[in-house]
Amino acid sequence: MIDTLQDALGSSIVLTDEDLVAGYVHDEAEWAAYGRALAVVRATSVYDVQQTVRWAIEHDVPVVPRGAGTGLSGGANAVDGCVIISLERMNKVKEINALERLAVVEPGVVNNDLRDAVAKEGLWYPPDPASAPWSTIGGNVGTNAGGVCCVKYGVTRDYVLSLQVVTGTGEVVRIGRRTAKGVAGLDLVGLMVGSEGTLGVITEITVRLRPLPDPPRTVIGYFDSIVDAGVAVREVAAKGVTPSALELVDRVCLQAVDNYAHMGLSGEANVILIGEVDQPGDTGVRESQLLQEAFTAGNATFVAETCDPKEAEVMMAARRLAYPAMEGLGDLLTEDICVPKEHVPEMLRRIEVIAAECNTQIANVAHAGDGNLHPLMITERGDTAARERAQQAFGRIIDDAIALGGTVTGEHGVGLLKMPGLAKEQGPHVMAMQQAIKKALDPHGILNPGKVLPVASPTGSVL
Amino acid sequence: MIDTLQDALGSSIVLTDEDLVAGYVHDEAEWAAYGRALAVVRATSVYDVQQTVRWAIEHDVPVVPRGAGTGLSGGANAVDGCVIISLERMNKVKEINALERLAVVEPGVVNNDLRDAVAKEGLWYPPDPASAPWSTIGGNVGTNAGGVCCVKYGVTRDYVLSLQVVTGTGEVVRIGRRTAKGVAGLDLVGLMVGSEGTLGVITEITVRLRPLPDPPRTVIGYFDSIVDAGVAVREVAAKGVTPSALELVDRVCLQAVDNYAHMGLSGEANVILIGEVDQPGDTGVRESQLLQEAFTAGNATFVAETCDPKEAEVMMAARRLAYPAMEGLGDLLTEDICVPKEHVPEMLRRIEVIAAECNTQIANVAHAGDGNLHPLMITERGDTAARERAQQAFGRIIDDAIALGGTVTGEHGVGLLKMPGLAKEQGPHVMAMQQAIKKALDPHGILNPGKVLPVASPTGSVL
Repeated sequence: MIDTLQDALGSSIVLTDEDLVAGYVHDEAEWAAYGRALAVVRATSVYDVQQTVRWAIEHDVPVVPRGAGTGLSGGANAVDGCVIISLERMNKVKEINALERLAVVEPGVVNNDLRDAVAKEGLWYPPDPASAPWSTIGGNVGTNAGGVCCVKYGVTRDYVLSLQVVTGTGEVVRIGRRTAKGVAGLDLVGLMVGSEGTLGVITEITVRLRPLPDPPRTVIGYFDSIVDAGVAVREVAAKGVTPSALELVDRVCLQAVDNYAHMGLSGEANVILIGEVDQPGDTGVRESQLLQEAFTAGNATFVAETCDPKEAEVMMAARRLAYPAMEGLGDLLTEDICVPKEHVPEMLRRIEVIAAECNTQIANVAHAGDGNLHPLMITERGDTAARERAQQAFGRIIDDAIALGGTVTGEHGVGLLKMPGLAKEQGPHVMAMQQAIKKALDPHGILNPGKVLPVASPTGSVL
Repeated sequence: MIDTLQDALGSSIVLTDEDLVAGYVHDEAEWAAYGRALAVVRATSVYDVQQTVRWAIEHDVPVVPRGAGTGLSGGANAVDGCVIISLERMNKVKEINALERLAVVEPGVVNNDLRDAVAKEGLWYPPDPASAPWSTIGGNVGTNAGGVCCVKYGVTRDYVLSLQVVTGTGEVVRIGRRTAKGVAGLDLVGLMVGSEGTLGVITEITVRLRPLPDPPRTVIGYFDSIVDAGVAVREVAAKGVTPSALELVDRVCLQAVDNYAHMGLSGEANVILIGEVDQPGDTGVRESQLLQEAFTAGNATFVAETCDPKEAEVMMAARRLAYPAMEGLGDLLTEDICVPKEHVPEMLRRIEVIAAECNTQIANVAHAGDGNLHPLMITERGDTAARERAQQAFGRIIDDAIALGGTVTGEHGVGLLKMPGLAKEQGPHVMAMQQAIKKALDPHGILNPGKVLPVASPTGSVL
């Protein structure tokens, strides 16, 4: 069956060799299940994507789009019998327009490559997930990726103006606009962003850009306890400061980073907060002052400001290296809850309690300034009992986040891992609205089925 | 039939008196058709709304939600045999939370009332349509309203975190979140914003807030021709300035404002640009300087900066009064195109050509900084031939905006007046996607039918 697709597009585009296909069947969500794929289509053009989707409709085969596979929720994992569409070869920056402050890119452009290209024009593409050196804009759009700067500058959806999409009926459409404003019809672009490949395959993206920000002032705080750091985060919000970054790294992560990159940070503090403010002039000075006061109000044991970019970069590098550094410690189950800022200290306290009660090591990194916490459950590889306890902790953290008015996923997406959490958070009526939209835009049920939303049976009920 | 609804909710809520109903059957789009309504439900609670929608489903009666009726596209106009749901009495500000920077409001809260309420806490709700003294947040959300500040601070959709909605199946749901970030499921909030009552009836809104901005520097430019002013607008973008306002008012409007409010502006200039920058300190000084240079590059005959809030307010008042002042001149047909910034001079030139060729007086006000132009076709009341010429001009302006890569509606919404333009702009496949979503969320076809999208026949084709 796959032969007809291979004949149409060529064997350099449609890979069926098992070893090659194996490299594409899952993302970086270690705990998420994945199935066997028939083939990988390494698309080079919208034509390849459209032909694949039309072939998939004809043969009733699921398609799973993917970028670099750096996702942490299993959204790009193969489902049995699927064709994976990899967009990595569609990696051209087609236009950078300084006057309109926009760029047009293919989905396989790596986030940092776009950022570097526009920086040459004095422009900035803000969304900066920790995966920015590897992840692609297409994947970022599919998951509505966040990052460090979001606390001030918003997430991927805030920067997507227009998309070219291959739809669930195999048409190539252009949605959105190039203009600064526009209210023509329903917001199909916003709907497509963050839909994790369940509503269409994105083949071109027009993003908004901003001018490069002013160099930040960086404020570091050391804390004895994670709850103290949480209190400082709440104080930042209470004082009305808008930091351009406010990150938390705990002792377990600091030690892992020390082992990984020999930075010598873990001797200094149990928990660090790294804050940045980037308003110019006296306003920036005042904001930095307020940030320092907020850290002090959270019982910081040490607070300092630096305007030395190198020193600031060392601190932020520790944050960025946390995840790769931790991977050496065992199997990681990554949480991604987001709670209202006022409840950050309480949520961090509850995570400590859950760690103790579930006898599970939980490390913490966080985009703390917007309440987006990433507790990381670490278990020794092969220890089944520990794994079960970690899974229990994962579920309890989700329940507590919902109880505090939060959400089960701040930026990683639902994928497979957060499907039970999504249904708990949103309830049956909101789930039904989403199922109805899914069925409307994917009438053949071929677009990444079984991700985000449960597969609906032909009669409309949920299997 | 309507008696059963009146019995259920009471005759103070369900109005059927013809004279009273007549006050609710159209918005301010003078040229848009409207039909006869069975009744107006002046809802006081989500219960009233839900009961009305359930009754409407049972009796196959269209419901048309409306706020203050200040719309300019006919989106809130009655369709024959409908029940109008007026949300004006649901006007409580339920919560202002400075720490989370959000407010929770009922849909009938007047925009300026919300702005005043949050200003007391040092906070700011940016979206500021010219109708802000009268229009409601619910209406603003329904149309994704824009305004003067959007050029820097974005539109209504950028500020809506969460909604309570009565759905097309009569359920009360809560969509979105209270947290700063979140990617749980499809973006139902973004979809609902700007859907003009076609996907649900909004009964509660949670909006993001910002800190109050710094006082702006205001730069005024006088120009002999509107194309010169357009060149200045393009130069502002080319220089990479981010103004917090950049408004255009032409001679016809200035004279109307003079007659209306005796401000004496029209003796000074043919066209004025009013720019604001609000970055603090030296950055603001530099931005103001760049704005002045851009105006000069557009052949301004006079350029001046003022930091006197009173003087700045006079200029901005002239902009805000333009529409009410013009209403005295005759019938107004209001355009709302938005074009890429680089094409602002060319679009303004084409509007001049169209005015001459169609022998129609066209005045211009514009949110020029984001390319959102409001050419206003003025015709003497009762002059049918002039009206036909104006309608021809309206159509040609839409065609030219599309040809220049623009959109048919920047901020007013599609309603009735822009339905042909929407179909032209987006083409059949994108229209079909929207029809599919409409059918998914409004399976009974009762939610403001015949607005934005043509009514689909039961078999799926478009009548």
